[in-house]
Amino acid sequence: MQNTIRIIGIDPGLRRTGWGIIDTLGNSLRFVASGTVTSDGDMDLASRLCQLHDGLADVVHSYKPNEAAVEQTFVNKDAVATLKLGQARGIAMLVPARAGLPVSEYAPNAVKKTVIGVGHGEKQQIHVMLKILMPKAEFKGNDAADALAIAICHAHHRGGNKMRRALAS
Amino acid sequence: MQNTIRIIGIDPGLRRTGWGIIDTLGNSLRFVASGTVTSDGDMDLASRLCQLHDGLADVVHSYKPNEAAVEQTFVNKDAVATLKLGQARGIAMLVPARAGLPVSEYAPNAVKKTVIGVGHGEKQQIHVMLKILMPKAEFKGNDAADALAIAICHAHHRGGNKMRRALAS
Repeated sequence: MQNTIRIIGIDPGLRRTGWGIIDTLGNSLRFVASGTVTSDGDMDLASRLCQLHDGLADVVHSYKPNEAAVEQTFVNKDAVATLKLGQARGIAMLVPARAGLPVSEYAPNAVKKTVIGVGHGEKQQIHVMLKILMPKAEFKGNDAADALAIAICHAHHRGGNKMRRALAS
Repeated sequence: MQNTIRIIGIDPGLRRTGWGIIDTLGNSLRFVASGTVTSDGDMDLASRLCQLHDGLADVVHSYKPNEAAVEQTFVNKDAVATLKLGQARGIAMLVPARAGLPVSEYAPNAVKKTVIGVGHGEKQQIHVMLKILMPKAEFKGNDAADALAIAICHAHHRGGNKMRRALAS
């Protein structure tokens, strides 16, 4: 017998970190919640990282997901932006890991390929596909939508991941 | 009357994060402890970030510093390395901030300028100067030595920082 697995997808960013929660049972997907954790750009970096941590920890505590998936973010050529993103991403991975969740990483083109069928596409296509895959899905803005897409990507790949982990051990 | 201020300096890195604790009273410096928190390169990223978090949290809990200083790490041209460093750095700033400590950041050349008098120099010069400034200092390896140097840099600049904060508010 299969159990429902609750997944949190996280799209990390220092200013805005999107999150999306879905339930998956076999091939079915159910929208649970989504949102964005923001940090105050006028505050110092350490305080902003605390804001992201506390916001994400609240979400994990409230919805009690079983597994987490974080976007393996595209590394652009702007080193300052990459360092900032890395700092936010460290928090996005730490929070679910400290709560005991396995944390998987997916590249943006893997996420797009799962959700819209190709490895590239407009943000708007992700929004449309989310509504087709989960008609009750609600999301404000691209960060929450991307986070839901990451959660769906994990729902589709987790069986394979588990198999790969079993084979590797 | 002045109070002794205990400072933790942190030199962040995903594989090895150095830490150093000093007490400062006026112009005097006293070595307290130093060490390195390591993460297991065979484990997944989220677990490694947990290892860094738990190791640093133990240090903060044991030594109860009043203020923290983290190296504002040089951003090199390798974006993958910068992202890794950013993730470790996010944890290095989060841990003291969550413990309620103010967290300052110092560029590597500011640290070198404070400790060895110029903005560039060999690692060995830092080791020698640490022994001159704090004869009882003990440190194994460059990461712990760098962390002590960051703590000393903060001890020298914290008055100015406080003044700048007061002027800005």
